[in-house]
Amino acid sequence: MIDLIAFDADDTLWGNENYFYQTQNEYAQILSDYGCKEAVLERLHSTEIKNLKLYGYGIKSYTLSMIEAALSLSFREIPGELVAKILALGAKMLTEPVQPMNHVQHVLENLSQNHDLITITKGDLLDQNRKMKKSGLARYFSDVIVVSEKDDEAYQQIIQGKNIKPENFLMVGNSMKSDILPVLNIGGYGAYVPYKYTWDHEHVAEPVEHEKLFELKDMKEILDLKFFN
Amino acid sequence: MIDLIAFDADDTLWGNENYFYQTQNEYAQILSDYGCKEAVLERLHSTEIKNLKLYGYGIKSYTLSMIEAALSLSFREIPGELVAKILALGAKMLTEPVQPMNHVQHVLENLSQNHDLITITKGDLLDQNRKMKKSGLARYFSDVIVVSEKDDEAYQQIIQGKNIKPENFLMVGNSMKSDILPVLNIGGYGAYVPYKYTWDHEHVAEPVEHEKLFELKDMKEILDLKFFN
Repeated sequence: MIDLIAFDADDTLWGNENYFYQTQNEYAQILSDYGCKEAVLERLHSTEIKNLKLYGYGIKSYTLSMIEAALSLSFREIPGELVAKILALGAKMLTEPVQPMNHVQHVLENLSQNHDLITITKGDLLDQNRKMKKSGLARYFSDVIVVSEKDDEAYQQIIQGKNIKPENFLMVGNSMKSDILPVLNIGGYGAYVPYKYTWDHEHVAEPVEHEKLFELKDMKEILDLKFFN
Repeated sequence: MIDLIAFDADDTLWGNENYFYQTQNEYAQILSDYGCKEAVLERLHSTEIKNLKLYGYGIKSYTLSMIEAALSLSFREIPGELVAKILALGAKMLTEPVQPMNHVQHVLENLSQNHDLITITKGDLLDQNRKMKKSGLARYFSDVIVVSEKDDEAYQQIIQGKNIKPENFLMVGNSMKSDILPVLNIGGYGAYVPYKYTWDHEHVAEPVEHEKLFELKDMKEILDLKFFN
């Protein structure tokens, strides 16, 4: 019944948003002369959202937005020393360890025996490939697809390219907005596995109910879905 | 005989390196208090090459390297005003117009009637998609593939994914190192169409001779290749 299972990567296969949380705390510390933590992070977030169309997702975009917000908060008076610290924050994120979350390996090991598995993520190509490699999970996936935006059209293109009908497609992810809603829209199945942190930008205000949506508390519950039993 | 034709995008379908030239001239101007043009650009290039593994290719990576080199040249004394100017240089590159080079449209129009055409590029996914859209050439291509590195393995994966044998594959591009040599290595055909500017990093010192290599002076000569007559 399900021929292709796609997984989101960040905050689904491994934690990622936690590094952004850590980084923004250090960022607020670096800029503490120019505003309280709340003010600094608000400027950072509004800069990040403003730049999404220009820069897209990923750590390099985030680093450029951190620098831009720092210039703005300091009225361009920020010392080079602090700009260098911000650059280093970004570089550190690009070399963080990648630790698969609980039960992920077990679930992939199990599902990969009878299904084609792929990942579909946003962000930097190079960085996503790095994380996949570091995670030790690459062997379970026939394809690692990085897209600029996870909308209906992007999912449609992917399943068409794989010759898969929507009713035979399941997407697993932690973002209702990016991983689940567009897949339901095109007629596929969604398994929603929330993560402890969700980026504001990915929040969906209304609760969602749909016959093709499964809300799971933990990744391991995927194996209990009707398709796999 | 040829089932799949892949085109490099930057400096093959449209000019791109010219914007880097323009940008680095303005960059040297911005940093003229910290060194002569040669010294500034040498620091920029060495920073860029050092960061390739961390940041990969593309304009965002280049912008981060411009900022890092400026911090280094100024011993971290660079005023925020100039950091803001460097950020703006990067943002400007991300919104430049995209003009197909001479004869490109004619060649694609012609070849697309009997062949599957794709593009294979390095760089940022979002930015490459933007340029493809702006160029007006998107309709000729069945796929726009962005890879982290153009090596033997990357090309092998692409043609395997498309079920194409190397002897039925032709790659067209302006970089001997990235577009031609790896394709010849895996048994495919290469059409080398040099551009007026070549990034140092893409230079190949030795002249190359190979029975499956065609060296062209202009894109329009592709239509004269034996496969298409």
